[in-house]
Amino acid sequence: MIERLAIVGVGLLGGSVAKAARARGIARRIVGVGRDLARLDPALRDGALDHATTDVAAGVAAADHIVLGAPALANEVLLARVWQAAPVGAVITDVGSTKRGIVAAAARLAAGRPDVRFVGSHPMAGSEQSGYRVARADLFDGATVVVTPTEVTDAQAVKGVIEFWAALGAQVVTLEPDTHDRAVAAISHLPHMVAWALVDAVARFEPDALALAARGFKDTTRIAAADPDMWREVLVGNREAVQASVAAFRRALDDLEALVAAGDGPALTALLGRVKAVRERLA
Amino acid sequence: MIERLAIVGVGLLGGSVAKAARARGIARRIVGVGRDLARLDPALRDGALDHATTDVAAGVAAADHIVLGAPALANEVLLARVWQAAPVGAVITDVGSTKRGIVAAAARLAAGRPDVRFVGSHPMAGSEQSGYRVARADLFDGATVVVTPTEVTDAQAVKGVIEFWAALGAQVVTLEPDTHDRAVAAISHLPHMVAWALVDAVARFEPDALALAARGFKDTTRIAAADPDMWREVLVGNREAVQASVAAFRRALDDLEALVAAGDGPALTALLGRVKAVRERLA
Repeated sequence: MIERLAIVGVGLLGGSVAKAARARGIARRIVGVGRDLARLDPALRDGALDHATTDVAAGVAAADHIVLGAPALANEVLLARVWQAAPVGAVITDVGSTKRGIVAAAARLAAGRPDVRFVGSHPMAGSEQSGYRVARADLFDGATVVVTPTEVTDAQAVKGVIEFWAALGAQVVTLEPDTHDRAVAAISHLPHMVAWALVDAVARFEPDALALAARGFKDTTRIAAADPDMWREVLVGNREAVQASVAAFRRALDDLEALVAAGDGPALTALLGRVKAVRERLA
Repeated sequence: MIERLAIVGVGLLGGSVAKAARARGIARRIVGVGRDLARLDPALRDGALDHATTDVAAGVAAADHIVLGAPALANEVLLARVWQAAPVGAVITDVGSTKRGIVAAAARLAAGRPDVRFVGSHPMAGSEQSGYRVARADLFDGATVVVTPTEVTDAQAVKGVIEFWAALGAQVVTLEPDTHDRAVAAISHLPHMVAWALVDAVARFEPDALALAARGFKDTTRIAAADPDMWREVLVGNREAVQASVAAFRRALDDLEALVAAGDGPALTALLGRVKAVRERLA
């Protein structure tokens, strides 16, 4: 049982942490910290939060478990202020979609104040929608949450963060921060790059065709409606891994296009069959 | 009212034509033609077909309205046999996803026997699944069907084919065959190319990341499980337009990646915001 859970940034993910923690009764008190008190009001009114404040230091001062709920770069900035204000023994985690930067920042802060612990987390439960209004108590139910300890992360803190996400219903996987960032570049950032380029290409070069868009185009490009501000940060923060993934994608597209250009039916059938089998294993 | 509707190729699309025509009572008799009598059995048993045969000539001999339900290149091959066997005044249409080839083939056949009419159709209601078992009476409900007359197509036949699809619940759009093929390359064939390359790139270069695939990756790549045999034909049949679409996509991806590489936050936000607005207009 967490005595006091502080959530800094109460949007889709932070808000869902509050709702899920409340629904599952895993925290005695839940405090929300945001930049705008009016925006925290719905979470107070529906009972997800016990208390709301715009003062980061006051919000986390007595918290034993702190969740940074903002996008990745914002969490890195918040981390220093939270670290300073957190009580002895506090465990901090986050929900940012890249992990190398914030884990490195935490290591620097821990050198100055080792009685506060940080363990990075990335719940793979985002959406093209954002804000508290789309937060759900069951958002983490069966979702994968990647927890990214390093060899120097306090084992007790790692255990606490893993148990926290498991208590919210998630399947927890642990990965090194670097490995995580490469994996999400491939499985999340690359599909976004491709979806944006796809919408942009049709809009620029074949705009009348948009009127014919059916389910295939819509499904393939749904994530192109994702929040630009959040994604600008993700892409710039993880740019090396993103570029490596785009390069891999270009090689795969080149290979496929070469078969189309050559009209090589048997090789095309083999490639499409192999890809179909991979995709079908994902269910 | 159609006296005798013949459907040559009773899979997802042809089978759905049979079911929808039956449900809406627009044909007195419905005949299915297939390569394998056993595969037509479910459609006879559930009442979608009145009669089934493997003999193309016999199946279409007395039909006033004939639908070619096979993939595009197969329909082009079938067309000559159907043309020869069709009765005077018959109207033939098809469901193939490219139109330039079959419309040109029909023009050649019409020169030899002008008492049979062909009007190309493309119901934008496919699926990554195939076969009669996924056919549905409501498949065309609200779906877009593109009908592709040319300046020499018989006006009465065009009217009949438009009314046929409208009677099955579809929104009918007419386009020149060339315009259609470029538009579907952009809105359908390109998204498939991109989805296949995406799955292939991750499978080849970052296979462990597949375990982290969440909704975004799955939606973006759902169509990568499409039928390889059907799509080999589509890609080879429409290769020029597909290559032009891939080239446009590469330009859009290059532009996006350049902003990521430069870490140009404001330009990224602007580009992602513009794309988000386009995507959101599609609903």
